[in-house]
Amino acid sequence: MAADGRGMRWWGWGDPAHHAPLPAHAVAWLEREIGLEREPRRPVGIEEVRLRPPALPEGVRARLEAIVGASAVCDDREARVLHAAGKGYPDLVRLRAGDAESAPDAVVWPASHEQVAAVLEASAAAGVAVVPFGGGTSVVGGVEPWRGEFGALVALDLGRLSAFVGLDERSQLALVEPGMRAPDLEAALAERGHTLGHFPQSYEYLTIGGAVATRSAGQASTGYGRIDELVKGVRMAAPAGELDLPARPASAAGPDLRELLVGSEGVLGVITQVALRVRPRPIQTRYEGWMLPSFALGVEALRLLAQENAAPDVARLSDEDETRMAFALAGRGGLKGDLARRYLHARGVEAGCLFVAGWEGEPERVRSRRTAGAAILGRCGAVGLGRSPGQAWARGRFHAPYLRDDLLDRGVMVETLETATTWGNLHALYRAVGDALRAHAPLVACHVSHLYATGASLYFSFLARQQRGAELEQWRGAKHAACQAIVAAGGTITHHHAVGRDHAPYLAAEDGELGLEALRALKARLDPAGIMNPGKLLPPATPASADRSG
Amino acid sequence: MAADGRGMRWWGWGDPAHHAPLPAHAVAWLEREIGLEREPRRPVGIEEVRLRPPALPEGVRARLEAIVGASAVCDDREARVLHAAGKGYPDLVRLRAGDAESAPDAVVWPASHEQVAAVLEASAAAGVAVVPFGGGTSVVGGVEPWRGEFGALVALDLGRLSAFVGLDERSQLALVEPGMRAPDLEAALAERGHTLGHFPQSYEYLTIGGAVATRSAGQASTGYGRIDELVKGVRMAAPAGELDLPARPASAAGPDLRELLVGSEGVLGVITQVALRVRPRPIQTRYEGWMLPSFALGVEALRLLAQENAAPDVARLSDEDETRMAFALAGRGGLKGDLARRYLHARGVEAGCLFVAGWEGEPERVRSRRTAGAAILGRCGAVGLGRSPGQAWARGRFHAPYLRDDLLDRGVMVETLETATTWGNLHALYRAVGDALRAHAPLVACHVSHLYATGASLYFSFLARQQRGAELEQWRGAKHAACQAIVAAGGTITHHHAVGRDHAPYLAAEDGELGLEALRALKARLDPAGIMNPGKLLPPATPASADRSG
Repeated sequence: MAADGRGMRWWGWGDPAHHAPLPAHAVAWLEREIGLEREPRRPVGIEEVRLRPPALPEGVRARLEAIVGASAVCDDREARVLHAAGKGYPDLVRLRAGDAESAPDAVVWPASHEQVAAVLEASAAAGVAVVPFGGGTSVVGGVEPWRGEFGALVALDLGRLSAFVGLDERSQLALVEPGMRAPDLEAALAERGHTLGHFPQSYEYLTIGGAVATRSAGQASTGYGRIDELVKGVRMAAPAGELDLPARPASAAGPDLRELLVGSEGVLGVITQVALRVRPRPIQTRYEGWMLPSFALGVEALRLLAQENAAPDVARLSDEDETRMAFALAGRGGLKGDLARRYLHARGVEAGCLFVAGWEGEPERVRSRRTAGAAILGRCGAVGLGRSPGQAWARGRFHAPYLRDDLLDRGVMVETLETATTWGNLHALYRAVGDALRAHAPLVACHVSHLYATGASLYFSFLARQQRGAELEQWRGAKHAACQAIVAAGGTITHHHAVGRDHAPYLAAEDGELGLEALRALKARLDPAGIMNPGKLLPPATPASADRSG
Repeated sequence: MAADGRGMRWWGWGDPAHHAPLPAHAVAWLEREIGLEREPRRPVGIEEVRLRPPALPEGVRARLEAIVGASAVCDDREARVLHAAGKGYPDLVRLRAGDAESAPDAVVWPASHEQVAAVLEASAAAGVAVVPFGGGTSVVGGVEPWRGEFGALVALDLGRLSAFVGLDERSQLALVEPGMRAPDLEAALAERGHTLGHFPQSYEYLTIGGAVATRSAGQASTGYGRIDELVKGVRMAAPAGELDLPARPASAAGPDLRELLVGSEGVLGVITQVALRVRPRPIQTRYEGWMLPSFALGVEALRLLAQENAAPDVARLSDEDETRMAFALAGRGGLKGDLARRYLHARGVEAGCLFVAGWEGEPERVRSRRTAGAAILGRCGAVGLGRSPGQAWARGRFHAPYLRDDLLDRGVMVETLETATTWGNLHALYRAVGDALRAHAPLVACHVSHLYATGASLYFSFLARQQRGAELEQWRGAKHAACQAIVAAGGTITHHHAVGRDHAPYLAAEDGELGLEALRALKARLDPAGIMNPGKLLPPATPASADRSG
């Protein structure tokens, strides 16, 4: 049984048929900036990938087959390799080198809440670890098949639990199964004149359950709200039983349990249904570019946009380095033309920062918000670049992960990480993380992409030539330095990538030791055998095992 | 030590100097509708109130005095009676009759986070129950000194922990201690050009910590957001240690622990500091009245206002019965004049529903939102009544609790309760709760006062002549019928009054048995001795003890 009709490269990102190699000028620029491998470093063939023999006891397998059907339990090479990792940089480094030693012993495809509950019960009884698997797009080790104390592990693929259950148009609520892919949901909603408005970079492969379990934020979340703001009801199958929290607009009935299930990353149970707030589809979308004289002035503009109710739905401000990199990689199609450069020079923003703004909705509201927004941007020295940079961004908005595969072929370490903090602390955090990363990578770029009244996110990309034979150590060095800087400077350890295994060691800095203990108490009650997604979210008992080694 | 300079009637609501007796025409109308007592039924004198001798062991008292200072531990009659109950109808019935048997054995006033932590540690060690006490305005038994298994109980009054810590203007964040009263906070913010915008009916006595602990919503929360949307950071002292969650605009770092502390109602620990999102003070406020032809059309208008981004900051739609009651009680000062009646009759809304709308903010935004809102109201058949009904509502917005004291004098049972649900379910819930209440009270009124994209709140008031000698049984009958109807019709058991003791028996219907178990696991970890606010929020182990008897 394949995950579904939309295949994914087992060693990289996305549709195997999609080829988007770097253009020659971009290769030349990167060669100058960081140095590239002369010979492409291609992934091994799938038949060369190293797998351990499946370790699922025969009796357990028979029990699972009785629950979900014999064809819905697979341990063939392709199924196991496709569920052996997410899509983080270390995942791809390992897979391309043929390492899938930790692949699940089997993949199980339940088709209902009841089947999920029965699989969890059988797995808990047999001491088999369970990794819930949606789109498999985690970049923080969230679906890594880490066995912990268990002898066997299954991936629970939610691809068959993917129905659009229904739309309550009056209440603007859609009921959706967790394995539904975001584009399928948008298509189902579009037929009914609605949209969810949730478009992370992983959109094409994202499942709704995965988005909810990881507190996802999308490119338009400044306007439409993060997934935690869009989720109004959740149903979960936990090993200890069912949690069913139907959609309620608001309540004062004690602590909000929904906020415990959102972001639970599969460690408490499996989300089997969600109620999502939807909206009428936007009649108009207007994406455009602006140049700000500096990152500092750009951040000031963003703050005013957010606090004066004028924020666009999509708001992305690149810092000077990211702007320079974007123009270099875009080549002559970007703003590199002499004419464009002379115009920006004349306006004093030649070495400035690119801001992409997208307003969506009903035309009168787009117009009035854009007018207010443009006035604020003007006060901060922004120069309008018209629609073309905005439209160019929108065309390529889901393409960056493909680019990464090409960069890996060329021996480049390329990774991203993100954080958020208050407006008052944003510059200190920006400097601290940038400085930490520049000690490990010659190219470090940053953008702000999610605005709130009280603060904003920071999204860093960094590139360096791979250290051959020490790729994972190199990555760990840079990642650890950045995480330490984030924690020390008061940022959140993750704004929208989630915790997974990579950030688990830093969660105590965020929630405190007692906060972690509270989460552990909760997990012990819902998952007494501890089979759910071991090693994710909560730091393991021994610090040594928190190290995500290759 | 007095709670603070702003005294509160021990047997009723508010400033002892404030007298607002019902006008003669209102008395006559109530006499016709439900019947009133001829002779006023006044509360007993404070010296007649029955108290048990203080049961705090001498050693514990000495320990607490060592922590907070000798003058900050009191067991005099006034302190104990003032902390013997909240301000719910059954609380006042008991207090007025001289019953304060369950009053705390002492009242303790800590002045810092560290003192709170030390008091909790000492109390846990000695097996003394602790009831955190802010403004004491709970109407659901949230501060009832219920001892449970413990031999002694102290009220922890937060009146000394009431500083305005600071304002981060750039991040629109204010740092506040929990005992600060809402009017003091607004005054401190006003000096700095800001507002929180949180105005529940209890505003004059509300403390910020109490609002956070009970998931409060205020009269302007449709515009400014509920307290759970305004709280960005929380610090808590729990018996097991400290939880410190500083302000973060957003995060994907796992379940949101802040959402566990918000609404925790003192059963996990004591909130010792909060970071609140504030805004610039509104330059303009425009409150006005409209008449809708019917409640059904009014609800339709509210839904469109909420879903088309045109909701006023204050939005209150009375149903036909509440409108009729409001006009009857307001007398000629309301809309009873012959001229006004003829006008409404001519427009077809004479027997309609009053809608109070308040727009606040910067003039251009008030204008544009009001224009959009007025267009929607017009589509639904609303007739504008001008500013005077809005201003009249604003003048009396905090007065209803005073009225209740007068009604109790006249032998009237008067109580309110509230719920919320999706727009699609709103009418079914409205009918179910109304029908349940009408079996117990001749006067039942309802309004919608909080709008969300996916649904709205319903707030019911009901009045009946008291059954002498069986006042509490009478109240329990009505309350239970309404709660059962809410649960059966899919509403939340409380939209903004919190759970306390009164709603605890119904929480399982909301969170499920496993949800309650999850909360119990959390409480066991943070409060291992179970001393924190026993009997609140979580239903007690034995169903019998859940009954809040007199």
